[in-house]
Amino acid sequence: MTAKLAEMTTLEAAQAADDGTVVVIPVGAFEQHGAGLPLATDQIRAEALADAVAEALPGKVVIGPGVPVGVSPHHQAFAGTVSLRPALFAAVVREYVESLAAHGWRRFLVVTGHGGNNATLGTLAQDLLRDRPDLEFAWTPVTVLAGDAVGAMELTPVSGHSGEAETAQMLHIAPHLVRHDLLDPGTTTPDQLDPFARLARSVRHPAVALPYDRLSPTGVLGDPRRATAEDGRAILAEATDRIVAFIKEWLDT
Amino acid sequence: MTAKLAEMTTLEAAQAADDGTVVVIPVGAFEQHGAGLPLATDQIRAEALADAVAEALPGKVVIGPGVPVGVSPHHQAFAGTVSLRPALFAAVVREYVESLAAHGWRRFLVVTGHGGNNATLGTLAQDLLRDRPDLEFAWTPVTVLAGDAVGAMELTPVSGHSGEAETAQMLHIAPHLVRHDLLDPGTTTPDQLDPFARLARSVRHPAVALPYDRLSPTGVLGDPRRATAEDGRAILAEATDRIVAFIKEWLDT
Amino acid sequence: MTAKLAEMTTLEAAQAADDGTVVVIPVGAFEQHGAGLPLATDQIRAEALADAVAEALPGKVVIGPGVPVGVSPHHQAFAGTVSLRPALFAAVVREYVESLAAHGWRRFLVVTGHGGNNATLGTLAQDLLRDRPDLEFAWTPVTVLAGDAVGAMELTPVSGHSGEAETAQMLHIAPHLVRHDLLDPGTTTPDQLDPFARLARSVRHPAVALPYDRLSPTGVLGDPRRATAEDGRAILAEATDRIVAFIKEWLDT
Amino acid sequence: MTAKLAEMTTLEAAQAADDGTVVVIPVGAFEQHGAGLPLATDQIRAEALADAVAEALPGKVVIGPGVPVGVSPHHQAFAGTVSLRPALFAAVVREYVESLAAHGWRRFLVVTGHGGNNATLGTLAQDLLRDRPDLEFAWTPVTVLAGDAVGAMELTPVSGHSGEAETAQMLHIAPHLVRHDLLDPGTTTPDQLDPFARLARSVRHPAVALPYDRLSPTGVLGDPRRATAEDGRAILAEATDRIVAFIKEWLDT
Amino acid sequence: MTAKLAEMTTLEAAQAADDGTVVVIPVGAFEQHGAGLPLATDQIRAEALADAVAEALPGKVVIGPGVPVGVSPHHQAFAGTVSLRPALFAAVVREYVESLAAHGWRRFLVVTGHGGNNATLGTLAQDLLRDRPDLEFAWTPVTVLAGDAVGAMELTPVSGHSGEAETAQMLHIAPHLVRHDLLDPGTTTPDQLDPFARLARSVRHPAVALPYDRLSPTGVLGDPRRATAEDGRAILAEATDRIVAFIKEWLDT
Amino acid sequence: MTAKLAEMTTLEAAQAADDGTVVVIPVGAFEQHGAGLPLATDQIRAEALADAVAEALPGKVVIGPGVPVGVSPHHQAFAGTVSLRPALFAAVVREYVESLAAHGWRRFLVVTGHGGNNATLGTLAQDLLRDRPDLEFAWTPVTVLAGDAVGAMELTPVSGHSGEAETAQMLHIAPHLVRHDLLDPGTTTPDQLDPFARLARSVRHPAVALPYDRLSPTGVLGDPRRATAEDGRAILAEATDRIVAFIKEWLDT
Repeated sequence: MTAKLAEMTTLEAAQAADDGTVVVIPVGAFEQHGAGLPLATDQIRAEALADAVAEALPGKVVIGPGVPVGVSPHHQAFAGTVSLRPALFAAVVREYVESLAAHGWRRFLVVTGHGGNNATLGTLAQDLLRDRPDLEFAWTPVTVLAGDAVGAMELTPVSGHSGEAETAQMLHIAPHLVRHDLLDPGTTTPDQLDPFARLARSVRHPAVALPYDRLSPTGVLGDPRRATAEDGRAILAEATDRIVAFIKEWLDT
Repeated sequence: MTAKLAEMTTLEAAQAADDGTVVVIPVGAFEQHGAGLPLATDQIRAEALADAVAEALPGKVVIGPGVPVGVSPHHQAFAGTVSLRPALFAAVVREYVESLAAHGWRRFLVVTGHGGNNATLGTLAQDLLRDRPDLEFAWTPVTVLAGDAVGAMELTPVSGHSGEAETAQMLHIAPHLVRHDLLDPGTTTPDQLDPFARLARSVRHPAVALPYDRLSPTGVLGDPRRATAEDGRAILAEATDRIVAFIKEWLDT
Repeated sequence: MTAKLAEMTTLEAAQAADDGTVVVIPVGAFEQHGAGLPLATDQIRAEALADAVAEALPGKVVIGPGVPVGVSPHHQAFAGTVSLRPALFAAVVREYVESLAAHGWRRFLVVTGHGGNNATLGTLAQDLLRDRPDLEFAWTPVTVLAGDAVGAMELTPVSGHSGEAETAQMLHIAPHLVRHDLLDPGTTTPDQLDPFARLARSVRHPAVALPYDRLSPTGVLGDPRRATAEDGRAILAEATDRIVAFIKEWLDT
Repeated sequence: MTAKLAEMTTLEAAQAADDGTVVVIPVGAFEQHGAGLPLATDQIRAEALADAVAEALPGKVVIGPGVPVGVSPHHQAFAGTVSLRPALFAAVVREYVESLAAHGWRRFLVVTGHGGNNATLGTLAQDLLRDRPDLEFAWTPVTVLAGDAVGAMELTPVSGHSGEAETAQMLHIAPHLVRHDLLDPGTTTPDQLDPFARLARSVRHPAVALPYDRLSPTGVLGDPRRATAEDGRAILAEATDRIVAFIKEWLDT
Repeated sequence: MTAKLAEMTTLEAAQAADDGTVVVIPVGAFEQHGAGLPLATDQIRAEALADAVAEALPGKVVIGPGVPVGVSPHHQAFAGTVSLRPALFAAVVREYVESLAAHGWRRFLVVTGHGGNNATLGTLAQDLLRDRPDLEFAWTPVTVLAGDAVGAMELTPVSGHSGEAETAQMLHIAPHLVRHDLLDPGTTTPDQLDPFARLARSVRHPAVALPYDRLSPTGVLGDPRRATAEDGRAILAEATDRIVAFIKEWLDT
Repeated sequence: MTAKLAEMTTLEAAQAADDGTVVVIPVGAFEQHGAGLPLATDQIRAEALADAVAEALPGKVVIGPGVPVGVSPHHQAFAGTVSLRPALFAAVVREYVESLAAHGWRRFLVVTGHGGNNATLGTLAQDLLRDRPDLEFAWTPVTVLAGDAVGAMELTPVSGHSGEAETAQMLHIAPHLVRHDLLDPGTTTPDQLDPFARLARSVRHPAVALPYDRLSPTGVLGDPRRATAEDGRAILAEATDRIVAFIKEWLDT
């Protein structure tokens, strides 16, 4: 049977709630990913991970409705980018959680393919802690779960958005959506950055949010040509394992 | 080339905006559809209609990000239903519109597979009229566009949600998601309703919103067994024609 | 005794709440009605209907506080128009309802003289369904309740705001506020409209909200000179009958 | 010609805006006024004052839409009371002001028959100072403008809501709405109060908001039997003079 | 032991809540005070008063967290001024109150060194009356509590912000923060005002909010050179006595 | 001259804005810190760091108004904790930033002594990026800047809130506020945690927010007895150096 709530009937949903399943909510972004990747890249990756987790944990997990648009003000200079304000994005996820909690679900895991959603998910977790102490709410980004797989790749000194790791995942998950011939390196070394951008990238804290058109004229950080589908498979596998292990332990608590 | 913005790159999106395309935004609901249809029924139908419109108008239309969850408080008693408040749903669609307007799009058509979103879309249209007079914003439900096709079907006296017309569409669009053996009649005649519900259904105005568990124990109004895939095809075709005609005329203004 | 809560004392109000009366809340607009009708036209008509209903149902109905300003962004180009945003208008009506519910009332009927409030009232009904399932909330426009009476009038092909039906009501209810010598036809045929406006008026769906200065230079749709006070009397009578019948049945449920 | 915008046409409103008139906005409350006075007492008094001012300053003043419900949480224990939250009341008045400012008006005077609106009007004035420095916004209560007339009355030691001064105004303005035989003294001396209420009434600051059911079982402070219509006439006259003088000077600046 | 919650541990706070202490919350402003006084003048005075009250009532009072920035749109033209909107300021104080109420406190007194916060505190008191009838909430300005001490000073005809009384308090409380050589008279007589400002200052009602750069080029009303530290001591002493008396009586209710 | 805006006059503030100074805004929390540390611990540490930075960069930095209460729902079970919701905390900091930007400042650095504010500051940075691209906004926690100094300390396996590093800072900055005799170890090893808490602490992602009463009965993680003032001095020095270097480079961009 499908793990996707979207494809279940209300009777099947009732059963899944009774079974104490964890609701996995894939969220992403609708934003530029350079000349080579589609706008939905982050949502596609989040859904692939959710699917892999559900497949590995049959009967333990349901996949809830996704949020196809995330918090992307830093990409707004690039055509096609659609963005929700943090407060709005949080409100949407919260309504999902509270609607499903009304049917009996108690455990929620948001998988975000877009790092720009992290801070908002952090604030939502705090609000839920205050208002819904009866629920357990967790969230996770995708790529950072795969430290080993990414570490095994050869990244350029500046790397990140639409770069090696992200392109690899798309080559594995949705190769038909990759414009292979348009995969070109973006900003790859600090000296290509203006001084303030370079400063901002050089330290984790103080933290500075920068618009991506200031970081790269094409919106790409890194060299996507270095990515392979095999890298992407390894990233997805490692991330899946990490979440599966987490959920298994969670269900035992 | 795809008409789906989600699958385009930012460069392709820039071209589509320059081309003066109309953005079609499919929105639906995540709500009970009886024992036979999946929770995402309304979103699936809206997307199918958007796809058909885009196919009929190549280069004239792009399909924007969807909203998979709508305004469904009246279905909340049934497991799996997820609902956004009207103000929240409106805010999400508005952010889509304003984000895309920043890239140059001026014309937006929201296709809603869920009638529960109509009022909210009406208020959004008013807010945009006030704040964004530079944009042209239209919205439409799905099934009501197909008056002839639905009129040709044999409906039960009480009919509607998860009934003949909606089931027909799903049989045509996504038959693999229909639980054919679970398609059972719900409330089909007024005498099955309690007095206040009967009163509410007997007139269009005064208008009364009722929870669906009060209207039908299974959440179904009508007899889905009467539906055929051919009926569904006819509904989709008529609705497509109506929208295509509208957009063609729109693009000439 | 008066049916107007505004004129009651708190002791009389307590009695009316105990009696299980329906609260009728007249709402309107504060907007242009062409050269011949006053800005408060919609509120005047709503109040007249509420009064007629109360008179026909002594002891069954109380008239609550009105909202003299409605949702009128489409008339903002005309001097004197005052408008509330949909969310604000909904919040005001909701506070009325919740305040009165705290005193024991359970049934509410909003009568709106202004169609521009319909969508907002629809969203309010949904929010109340979610948050206050203990209440019964209905709403209705005025003129659409009088299909027979309006159908008996000779309307111009384009007709509506400040046109035949609305003027007729004012001639009956408040003739001293009608500038009889300034009643001039506005836009009366589709060919007087620009192409997009003509498209928008030609179909119910897709629905488009348009500013009235684009529909008519004087803000009038139709020919108010065709209206008679007798038409207005008939419209009011039919609308009253419809609501009275509704409330009688309601009180029996 | 009428000074009431509600009764003007859009053309007349345009002229009045061009003439640089001051907009007077009467606001009140919808709240208990003891056994003898109607719920709309505060709005009735505010409108009477606005009318008197307009009559004294023909062509200088227009009367805008009123707000029939004010900020009355302290009266909520008494049946019939309807209340808006401060933020909501402020938003409504602000929308009035901004709508009318769009038509050219620059000067606004809110006359509040209800002291419970004072603080909210104070905050609105601050918000407008920040956001709309192009406008001039003033507000005033009613009774406090008539210090001499009230000072000439014989008040009980505790006096105020529904007491001598307020009853006097109603006897003058709307005697048909006064239940003369039900005018009974409420709380008239401090010893009738509980200790905390007595403390709260004994000083202006620290300021304490108290529910009126704690101040008086009937909701009345003072002895309304002492009031005469002549007192009411004097209060209204003095308040009118004060405002007229203010507006005259204002129009000269 | 300290009365400052900020300096207490959680165990000490628990004890203080159990003891039924009154929470005194000092709030101020962060705004221009002419050439001679610091931006934090109002907060400094509020804290000094809170400290004096706590010292006089050992074990009866705790001092809660302060709000160093208040509602100061009228000073925004002067560099360094920071301002919160009324709704935001109210929300902050409310969160303080509700957080502390969760720990058992029931009585709250906000001491505001800035008159610009008065209206907002008034609206907050109303909202709390509605939502938290279990709490007792009082608020007070500082200088107005010291009518005798201020009355004994020789004030200029126009006096107020950064004038004699305020400077006196700073000379007593924080003389090291006073730029003695820069204490110059600001606007001291009505004829220095423009006509509208003069009108606004001449009456209490109608009330008008004015930006301070319109009232005084230096932001000062009155002649601060007339102030002495002894005047300041007297003001603080009188205000302290008034609050102490209030709290003592409060604790007996 | 002081670097504290609070102690400056408006004229001095004008000069500082003209000089292109960076505004450092210290924010903290008002929350339990075990039996040994005061509620204001986080604000005290943030202010100490801001002071040290200002001292090291004379004329380059001003210290803006602080926010003494942060986002602390996870500590609400412990008496004395006061918390702002994320959206409210963000709104306060934003008003600070926008008020100061109106006076000419362009660069802002928020120093937060409380990690619970991090996510909110992250969302604020995104909102500012969208709405105020003319400003440069950075934020940083305190202790994480001092990786070397903390790494040199001997921490217990579970360590954090009110533990070694935090206590050390207080011993250095405000030893008179430390209850030395009450510094007791809290939770120091994973086996003292319940299974879900242990899981949550074992991984960085998926991230889970937990209430601190679930993590430690006394609210302490780690063994504060191991802390020395010298450790605290080293932490503060390292953090200061890091920020000073950042600001120097920033001012050169």
